[in-house]
Amino acid sequence: MRATLLYAADDVRVENVADPKIHNPTDAVVRIVLSCICGSDLWPYKSLPPTDQPRHMGHEFLGVVEEAGSEVCALKRGDVVVAPFVYADNTCVYCREGMQTSCLHGGQWGVNGVDGGQGQTARVPYADGTLVKLPVAEDSELLPDLLTLSDILCTGYHAARTAGVRRGDSVTVVGDGAVGLAAVISAKLLGAEQIILMGRHTPRTDLGRAFGATDVVAERGEEGVARVRDMTGGEGTRKVLECVGLKDALVQSFGVVRDGGTISRVGAPQFTDVPFGFGDFMRNVTLTGGVAPARAYIEELMPHILDGSVRPGRVFDRTLGLEDIADGYRAMNDREALKVLVRP
Amino acid sequence: MRATLLYAADDVRVENVADPKIHNPTDAVVRIVLSCICGSDLWPYKSLPPTDQPRHMGHEFLGVVEEAGSEVCALKRGDVVVAPFVYADNTCVYCREGMQTSCLHGGQWGVNGVDGGQGQTARVPYADGTLVKLPVAEDSELLPDLLTLSDILCTGYHAARTAGVRRGDSVTVVGDGAVGLAAVISAKLLGAEQIILMGRHTPRTDLGRAFGATDVVAERGEEGVARVRDMTGGEGTRKVLECVGLKDALVQSFGVVRDGGTISRVGAPQFTDVPFGFGDFMRNVTLTGGVAPARAYIEELMPHILDGSVRPGRVFDRTLGLEDIADGYRAMNDREALKVLVRP
Repeated sequence: MRATLLYAADDVRVENVADPKIHNPTDAVVRIVLSCICGSDLWPYKSLPPTDQPRHMGHEFLGVVEEAGSEVCALKRGDVVVAPFVYADNTCVYCREGMQTSCLHGGQWGVNGVDGGQGQTARVPYADGTLVKLPVAEDSELLPDLLTLSDILCTGYHAARTAGVRRGDSVTVVGDGAVGLAAVISAKLLGAEQIILMGRHTPRTDLGRAFGATDVVAERGEEGVARVRDMTGGEGTRKVLECVGLKDALVQSFGVVRDGGTISRVGAPQFTDVPFGFGDFMRNVTLTGGVAPARAYIEELMPHILDGSVRPGRVFDRTLGLEDIADGYRAMNDREALKVLVRP
Repeated sequence: MRATLLYAADDVRVENVADPKIHNPTDAVVRIVLSCICGSDLWPYKSLPPTDQPRHMGHEFLGVVEEAGSEVCALKRGDVVVAPFVYADNTCVYCREGMQTSCLHGGQWGVNGVDGGQGQTARVPYADGTLVKLPVAEDSELLPDLLTLSDILCTGYHAARTAGVRRGDSVTVVGDGAVGLAAVISAKLLGAEQIILMGRHTPRTDLGRAFGATDVVAERGEEGVARVRDMTGGEGTRKVLECVGLKDALVQSFGVVRDGGTISRVGAPQFTDVPFGFGDFMRNVTLTGGVAPARAYIEELMPHILDGSVRPGRVFDRTLGLEDIADGYRAMNDREALKVLVRP
């Protein structure tokens, strides 16, 4: 089959790799119908040192079950399924608590002999635990929306949930990427009254308004903080959803959070130390969030997509065939595209 | 009156200062009956550069109202009262949410013309908001226990509450100082089943056992982390209460917290950057806590002291007169004393 491999920064290739087969009786093999490129794929795309053991890329996909191992009970050939961005048995002590990202048997796509999601097919470990059946046909117009259950919608929702967003809340979303926009959707779903989106790319913040942002702040840093404080009686918002992963975004989050408030960060941190010293200690700021256990949220969020009330698939502003995926990486990296859909 | 002044590291003096008077109609003047030295007093005691504008020390006291301003409604001359370690109006938007440490009109003892707590008398701003009446006489044997409502018991309780400790929980308390021991009491009050106290001073950890610690781990750093993990099936505890304020203690806290768990830190951080990078992000660790709004907890905790079910005053292992307070600083700094009670 064809799959996406990263050999070095800026060196994405689509090549032939071994066809996936059932290894364990709990595996399934899924023919991928839709995949996409993640903002987090851009970190290695920008920085990977050259290697002759290329990285298998992609962790967001949906598709059709081609074959199910002998111990797979809940799925059968022909089922349309979505995969969360890590696999998990969904039965261990962590999974049962909704922490599938800490699954004792789980892992990441694209490493340790597991396929990446940007290919034609994937072997899915712990298929019963990992995959969620979608009640649609493989040509449904909802597929792009449903694909966001793989990562970004659940990641934005994880930010809002771990921050404790509730009815009437004031929320700042830092970052107008796909996850930030999904965080806007999620804050609205949970009843936030004021949703301030901090971002400076007008097409994206316009989409953010369509998703429910009540205000947009294009300024960054101290200027952006001052604007948000102006809009909130000087206090800042009770909840801040940090959807970038850069230190500046986190510093900005501390700037706009109200005393006693919560920052949830879901942008994969590209730094090791958090500037969280005496001042924010005196303000009783909480820092929560982390990698989203998407699997925990899929069933809860899916109905909002199926009934058309949320349309997170609108973040996809470009569609490419698999063979052209390198163009997609370049376009997202150059900010020509917000998020690129890939049809294998 | 006599009061405690810090002129430089290791230079504590008791000197004459102006007698407190009512400045504002919301003030009260309190004759101090009991005060004490805080672990946080030791930071300036160790580090203050020499100054001719000495620092007025002390922020934990209880006493008797000598005079109440014309707008003070809830208190009268002769009332026995305890003061939390910051003053607050208890009516502003933050106070109403139990965030008196962020009070719009509040502040710290010993600065801006407000007396410190280690003296004979103190002017108390916003007396109605700040002070809580104690239903005991000024010679009650419960006074040392009740004095802990000023800071340490409420601080330990803030750690346990913000961490979300609940019935059946597993909790690690990092630090066997007075706040750590108060955190043990608090975790037990909230129903924790396993309370692991990390500390290496046997008299203190013995008191911790008496307060409810189920296990004591004397090892520190990686060795201590390994011990706690051994005791918790490799997982760590769901809640960690960091009661020290040093970076090593926080690193240790990240080591012993379970995936998806919460660290609450109440030790005033003596550092600016928290080592909280990608690894702990992937584990969905929450960092909460902060300076304790003691005022918010006093009425809730007081009954446990009045009925004798908790005896936090056992942390006081030395009593001195005010004139000898410098000895108390030295003894606490040298770890000869856990916490020193001062009778003006």
